[in-house]
Amino acid sequence: MRPPLCVVLVETRNPLNIGAAARAMANFGFSDLRVVNPYEVAFREAVSAVGGAPVLQSARVFPTVAEAVADCSYVLGTTALRNRELQHPVLGLEAAAATVSAQSATLTALLFGSEKFGLSNDDISHCHALVRIPTTPDTPSMNLGQSVAVCLYELIRADAVPAAALAPRKAMRACDAEQLTQMLLDVLRESGYTNRIVATSTERKIRRFFRRVDFTAQDAPLLLGILRQILWKIREKPEG
Amino acid sequence: MRPPLCVVLVETRNPLNIGAAARAMANFGFSDLRVVNPYEVAFREAVSAVGGAPVLQSARVFPTVAEAVADCSYVLGTTALRNRELQHPVLGLEAAAATVSAQSATLTALLFGSEKFGLSNDDISHCHALVRIPTTPDTPSMNLGQSVAVCLYELIRADAVPAAALAPRKAMRACDAEQLTQMLLDVLRESGYTNRIVATSTERKIRRFFRRVDFTAQDAPLLLGILRQILWKIREKPEG
Repeated sequence: MRPPLCVVLVETRNPLNIGAAARAMANFGFSDLRVVNPYEVAFREAVSAVGGAPVLQSARVFPTVAEAVADCSYVLGTTALRNRELQHPVLGLEAAAATVSAQSATLTALLFGSEKFGLSNDDISHCHALVRIPTTPDTPSMNLGQSVAVCLYELIRADAVPAAALAPRKAMRACDAEQLTQMLLDVLRESGYTNRIVATSTERKIRRFFRRVDFTAQDAPLLLGILRQILWKIREKPEG
Repeated sequence: MRPPLCVVLVETRNPLNIGAAARAMANFGFSDLRVVNPYEVAFREAVSAVGGAPVLQSARVFPTVAEAVADCSYVLGTTALRNRELQHPVLGLEAAAATVSAQSATLTALLFGSEKFGLSNDDISHCHALVRIPTTPDTPSMNLGQSVAVCLYELIRADAVPAAALAPRKAMRACDAEQLTQMLLDVLRESGYTNRIVATSTERKIRRFFRRVDFTAQDAPLLLGILRQILWKIREKPEG
């Protein structure tokens, strides 16, 4: 059984690579393709990759990563780098595939950045973990279509092996994590925590926090209720 | 350690695919590329794939499969078909990789056929075994560059350096968890979230929350700072 998974291509420049990703998905039995802000909006008119046409036809375009992963509970970003200065765990591909299998009760998003720059720090702030294909240090960066193929192969290979019976854990969906992020940012702003100068880094820090900590689906209503009440309280009173 | 291996592309039509194969070889640390009777003899002038240039430059052209594999002791042919009417064992990719590793004293050739027709029966007659990537029955045929990438990934997978040793995770101390619990309870009380009747169950719920979620040591100062600021803000204003 394939884990429920969508492939998210972020700011892909070359429509041929979208076609190649679609074909690899068809080869390995995946169908949910999402494209964020592609350079060629007319990517549907791109040369359709052999066998990838049905995947391409049902692909959806999103303006932001947040919207593309909103219904996903586990977001994995691909990177060719060994060390990003981020507090994200970087998993080898095999280990990453195991984590995806463990999330089989909920939808996983696998993110691929642009051909030239990969995923940005902002893109990565939506991720729970990063995954690295074990390429050589001399030539670490893979072709986009090829890296999609290798990742999906590993996902179905690992899946063929009976996975340790893990109780399916229901993780928090990305849209809930993002709502919590925004509400906490409101609280921080209105309580004077956020210095305007560092607002962007605070936003990234808070977004990372809600992805790094492995909240479950049940934590979302609890935390939303708490933040809603705090906001109400802070706003209730007239300015001192 | 990588097994001694050459990649042999037989009658490849599209020079871009030769470039893609070369790039995948560079990504996974292989360098011996051989091309049999390519449709574009001038493939060296083809768009060089990022990172694949040194592999392309040292590639050798042969007129026949026999000459291309002459110095190899084990020849594996790739196929997308489940049943060829041939007396060749068809191995899954993992099993095939194991046979290659077992031949590590001698050179193995990994053959890929043309984009349109794959390997011919004549080509296959030079093979010791066939290997099939576990693609779906609906869309079994992979893009050439992608199938090279997947095969080479599987060959190095077993030997891949374990993912950068993850920094040992420092869990949050119980005293910090309890301080956070008390501060959040203060916030909940003062913002009117806590109903006196259910105060005890709220306290238990919040205490459980800070233990159940696997916060790290680094989360403690972040959360304490946030809660302190919220408390300050709530207390700052005169009662409405």
